[in-house]
Amino acid sequence: MFPLFWLAPGGSLLALLYALVLSLRTRRFDEGTELMRQIAQAVREGARAYLRRQYLIVGLFFAAFFVLLLILALSDILPRFVPFIFVTGGFFSALSGFIGMTQATNSSARTANAARTSLNSALRIAFGAGGVMGFVVVGLSLFDLSFWFFILNMVYRSLPMNERLLVITQTIVCYGMGASFQALFARVGGGIFTKAADVGADLVGKVEADIPEDDPRNPATIADNVGDNVGDVAGMGADLYESYVGSIVAAMALAFAAGLGIRGVLLPLAIAAAGVVSSIIGTFLVRTREEASQRALLFAIRKGIWSASILMALLSAVIVQHFFPDNFNFYWPVLVGLVCGVFIGLSTEYFTSDNYGPTRRIAHASKTGPATVILEGLSVGMLSTVAPVIAVVCAILAGYFLPGGATHPSHGLFGVAIAAVGMLSTLGITLATDAYGPVADNAGGNAEMAGLPANVRERTDALDAIGNTTAATGKGFAIGSAALTVLALIAAYRSQILLHFGELTLSITDPKIIAGLFIGAMMPFAFCSQTIKAVGRTAALIVLEVRRQFKEITGLLEGKARPDYAAAVNLCTVAAQKEMVLPSLMAILVPIIIGVLLGPHGVIGLLIGALVSGFAVALMMASSGGAWDNAKKYIEKGEFGGKGSPEHKAAVVGDTVGDPFKDTAGPSLNILIKLMSTVSIVFVGFILRFVLFK
Amino acid sequence: MFPLFWLAPGGSLLALLYALVLSLRTRRFDEGTELMRQIAQAVREGARAYLRRQYLIVGLFFAAFFVLLLILALSDILPRFVPFIFVTGGFFSALSGFIGMTQATNSSARTANAARTSLNSALRIAFGAGGVMGFVVVGLSLFDLSFWFFILNMVYRSLPMNERLLVITQTIVCYGMGASFQALFARVGGGIFTKAADVGADLVGKVEADIPEDDPRNPATIADNVGDNVGDVAGMGADLYESYVGSIVAAMALAFAAGLGIRGVLLPLAIAAAGVVSSIIGTFLVRTREEASQRALLFAIRKGIWSASILMALLSAVIVQHFFPDNFNFYWPVLVGLVCGVFIGLSTEYFTSDNYGPTRRIAHASKTGPATVILEGLSVGMLSTVAPVIAVVCAILAGYFLPGGATHPSHGLFGVAIAAVGMLSTLGITLATDAYGPVADNAGGNAEMAGLPANVRERTDALDAIGNTTAATGKGFAIGSAALTVLALIAAYRSQILLHFGELTLSITDPKIIAGLFIGAMMPFAFCSQTIKAVGRTAALIVLEVRRQFKEITGLLEGKARPDYAAAVNLCTVAAQKEMVLPSLMAILVPIIIGVLLGPHGVIGLLIGALVSGFAVALMMASSGGAWDNAKKYIEKGEFGGKGSPEHKAAVVGDTVGDPFKDTAGPSLNILIKLMSTVSIVFVGFILRFVLFK
Repeated sequence: MFPLFWLAPGGSLLALLYALVLSLRTRRFDEGTELMRQIAQAVREGARAYLRRQYLIVGLFFAAFFVLLLILALSDILPRFVPFIFVTGGFFSALSGFIGMTQATNSSARTANAARTSLNSALRIAFGAGGVMGFVVVGLSLFDLSFWFFILNMVYRSLPMNERLLVITQTIVCYGMGASFQALFARVGGGIFTKAADVGADLVGKVEADIPEDDPRNPATIADNVGDNVGDVAGMGADLYESYVGSIVAAMALAFAAGLGIRGVLLPLAIAAAGVVSSIIGTFLVRTREEASQRALLFAIRKGIWSASILMALLSAVIVQHFFPDNFNFYWPVLVGLVCGVFIGLSTEYFTSDNYGPTRRIAHASKTGPATVILEGLSVGMLSTVAPVIAVVCAILAGYFLPGGATHPSHGLFGVAIAAVGMLSTLGITLATDAYGPVADNAGGNAEMAGLPANVRERTDALDAIGNTTAATGKGFAIGSAALTVLALIAAYRSQILLHFGELTLSITDPKIIAGLFIGAMMPFAFCSQTIKAVGRTAALIVLEVRRQFKEITGLLEGKARPDYAAAVNLCTVAAQKEMVLPSLMAILVPIIIGVLLGPHGVIGLLIGALVSGFAVALMMASSGGAWDNAKKYIEKGEFGGKGSPEHKAAVVGDTVGDPFKDTAGPSLNILIKLMSTVSIVFVGFILRFVLFK
Repeated sequence: MFPLFWLAPGGSLLALLYALVLSLRTRRFDEGTELMRQIAQAVREGARAYLRRQYLIVGLFFAAFFVLLLILALSDILPRFVPFIFVTGGFFSALSGFIGMTQATNSSARTANAARTSLNSALRIAFGAGGVMGFVVVGLSLFDLSFWFFILNMVYRSLPMNERLLVITQTIVCYGMGASFQALFARVGGGIFTKAADVGADLVGKVEADIPEDDPRNPATIADNVGDNVGDVAGMGADLYESYVGSIVAAMALAFAAGLGIRGVLLPLAIAAAGVVSSIIGTFLVRTREEASQRALLFAIRKGIWSASILMALLSAVIVQHFFPDNFNFYWPVLVGLVCGVFIGLSTEYFTSDNYGPTRRIAHASKTGPATVILEGLSVGMLSTVAPVIAVVCAILAGYFLPGGATHPSHGLFGVAIAAVGMLSTLGITLATDAYGPVADNAGGNAEMAGLPANVRERTDALDAIGNTTAATGKGFAIGSAALTVLALIAAYRSQILLHFGELTLSITDPKIIAGLFIGAMMPFAFCSQTIKAVGRTAALIVLEVRRQFKEITGLLEGKARPDYAAAVNLCTVAAQKEMVLPSLMAILVPIIIGVLLGPHGVIGLLIGALVSGFAVALMMASSGGAWDNAKKYIEKGEFGGKGSPEHKAAVVGDTVGDPFKDTAGPSLNILIKLMSTVSIVFVGFILRFVLFK
């Protein structure tokens, strides 16, 4: 085995050990009163029950797909390890979601309890839970990728180096399909659950019955908290698992296509390993003073992320210098990726934080009612696409041309792929800041339901508000890196086609490419339509259920009787499972159908169309949703009439519309696009046999 | 002059004469009571005052652009007649908007008066007013195009035929820029005016003060009616003027590029002329029984459109056979265009009419409040993109391959352009059905303000409800034809580039094309963000003004004092004029900036990206907006609690959000994309001198 290879398993081990340390440290803290413990237990059980059911259904799909891939592999249309690597991709994605969620549900009561005495300890516990998620994702993906590289390298050791690397990269790129496949189910299913519960709880609780959020009298309140864990933690973990893995395998495939040999193929893994070290060091810097302001809290988190990025910029320079002593130009894309990620994060923050104009203007629009809140929020979301698009365009051009893409296009494409790896290299810490939000949110729910004093809720609310901004930033990372990764995957798809055809002109004025572009650009709309409708439909069921309980359980609204929490949890679970299937199948079937009807030209058009329109739609949804949420929180702080005013009611409408935007439809789009790309790659050999119109 | 040329001026004359007949026929009817006359006069004056100001500002932009184009023409970068043809394009577009609007404002009181006795006469008057708009647009565009063809053919008569056609088509394609330029201002300015007035009036009137729509006590009610005329009549007329002209000039340019000579160049004009005849015959069939149902009314209009389409299918077969006796294949694109247009119309109707599930489900969602109404409506709008995208993709593929695009790509591109001409050939009647809606709407307003009996308002409401569906259909035509026209314009752009370069590889994986695609796909979002925000901002001003009047004018709400209507009209006029400038400038500057930065590759990516994402966004906005409006009307018919219920209030929120969607942002997108394309074509010679990164 090549000595440089060992960086990846080393990084994996380090990440997993660190996650273990973080997890054990949390155990030392107390879960608080008996009631707090009970609430945490109920949430934990609901979340586990949901995941069990989800994994069962997803497992069935994996089994069916495994058989299909096995047939293709046995017919020599696919490399023979593809079915197995596909399954492990899904398995490890699910495992990291499960571990992260377990940690999150173990930490919410502890965070609430810590918040009784100290803001800093509460921050450290919540952030530690996020850290477990972050480093488990990074550790398990590096582990599995190293494992397969090791195995495949052994199995094919008799082949000459070039052929060996071809089959290794061809096989390993299919790993991404497994991860994306499971991620899409997790994001969509979890997203529908969490937002249906949230929207449903808000619609009857806050708007109709006029009781506060997380009030124990609301029968949907446990479901709401379960939702945060299955959607915003497990779903998001799976999402970023596939982003991370996708960027690495795409870069590996393009390194081979660029003729960069084993060093090129191992470079993305080495950069990822360096990212683990940078991220761990960054997490040590996340701490704050007691009674810190919002700004100070945000700065505490920023400090961690920025330090990790700067460290990463230095480490990757050393790595590239060591890998390619005569071509340091491959360093620039890493730097470009890091800068682009930070820039997208800042732009997202500007549009979603109540420190700035856009969110405040949404809050101001509440003076003229819900319609103007919606219009202003949509307008903010649409405008927020501009800066990230420019950033990504700059990253594409710089990532392509700086490593010499003008003369060596294949080096340029590898550069774009490496930019994606660079952007995601500090995932350990960015995901930690992202997953910490729902833990803080749940801690707030726990505090409210357990009847803790108001200052506890104030502390958890402070943590939660920052969580909204970091979540939006995390989504920016996911979609920004997706743009670069999908371009790399499309290039990988093209190089697969070239293996079959030898030559391929892909003129953009080719009507089949244009047809593909139109259909691709429409896909995010069709997909979001399905997922938003699913949330609306499920939320309506919750509303009816809660209304039924308010009516049938006597003394419930007076706080004398307990609601039937489990009924709402079950309802969400069943509905989310049912609703996640159709949109997920769309992602798999459309590229195959277009491939058969319009051939590779149609598929490339489809993928690029879905990418460019999906990028804009995803950014719009993330920003509108985040801004609506924070505009509502801004009013709740006492601006424009404060809680309970007509302005507040108008802002709640915005928040409710934003929920499925930011946590169901929007964040699923980057997975949708990547899954479409990997499906196209995996089935390329199959499709080329059946193209109807050549 | 070629004998076949005379078809176009003949068609023009016929269309203009028919418009005159329709206009004179309306004069015979009475405007009703003194109060009705006064109200009509107030609306007329407000609308005229608005247009005068708009033309002044647009005139300044035209003057500046004229000078710029003159400099380019004098430097031999552009053909020398371009500056003049550009100006006439704008002038005739403005003129047809003005005539159409004058007729509309002259017909609303007459329609209301006729509705006192007969539904059929009311329909005939309102539809006649729409017909004036439709046939003036068609007549003036054919007139101006024929005029320029005649002049240019004379001026360049010393050139050999091929060179002569080159310069003629190169010059005439710039006609489109003038039309698009003025249309964008008209659509955006008029759209902001009408929707700001509408939203503002609804927000304070219906929601806050609980008085019905068009109540004379509402100070914004005249502004609302003025808005219908300047936005939905004059703006829409300018919009379809540029669609119509754009499709014809793009087809003429591509006929030349395909080497089809004078017959090819004249074919689009001849097809358009045949469309005039078909449309006139179609209008004779639009009549209905007294006390007809909604369905019967819709059928009356349908009958007209479908008969015109069938007639057109027959006439164009004769024409193509006569023009190209040996290549009848150019007929199929005409047919494909006609069928695609009808299909998009049907799909739009399904999603926006309360006869079908989607709109009813939005009404149903009102039971759980405004947030679910918004979510359901957005979801419906997003889903409504699927069928039109598939229809347009089929039209592109059929239009390209049926005339032999597989072996002669230039014939294929001409086929796509001819499909657009075919789709718009029956514009005379489709625009009539489209422009009739606002006249019926204004008639309702007039009836309400003049205190006519309830059955009059019922009749005008019945006419108005159909108007919502035909308006959505009209938008489907505009955006569907835009997709095909823009492809033709892009092909025309490419052939311009080829004149400079000789060769051009446009691989879709070229990073500069990808960069262009990303920016292009983002453009519709940035543009809609601006226009929606403008409506929200202006509506907020109206709300404050109306609230001020309610407070300061004693006795207003009791109906004892008259509001200050003119204040609201002025406020809208000034705000709309101010707000229309930035989004319109975006459309002109971005293609030039991208051209300079990224060269022709970037520009082609930009145009295609804007096309595929703008197509989806425009469809979504048109359908969501139409469906919300009709869901509200459905509830007003007595479903789900009827007028004044909480369900109705929730539906009004949807309607308000939908207003700028369907009448400001959405319908401007097709103009935006076409203007970007024509700007790229006109400035191609300029840009090629200054490209930074080649």
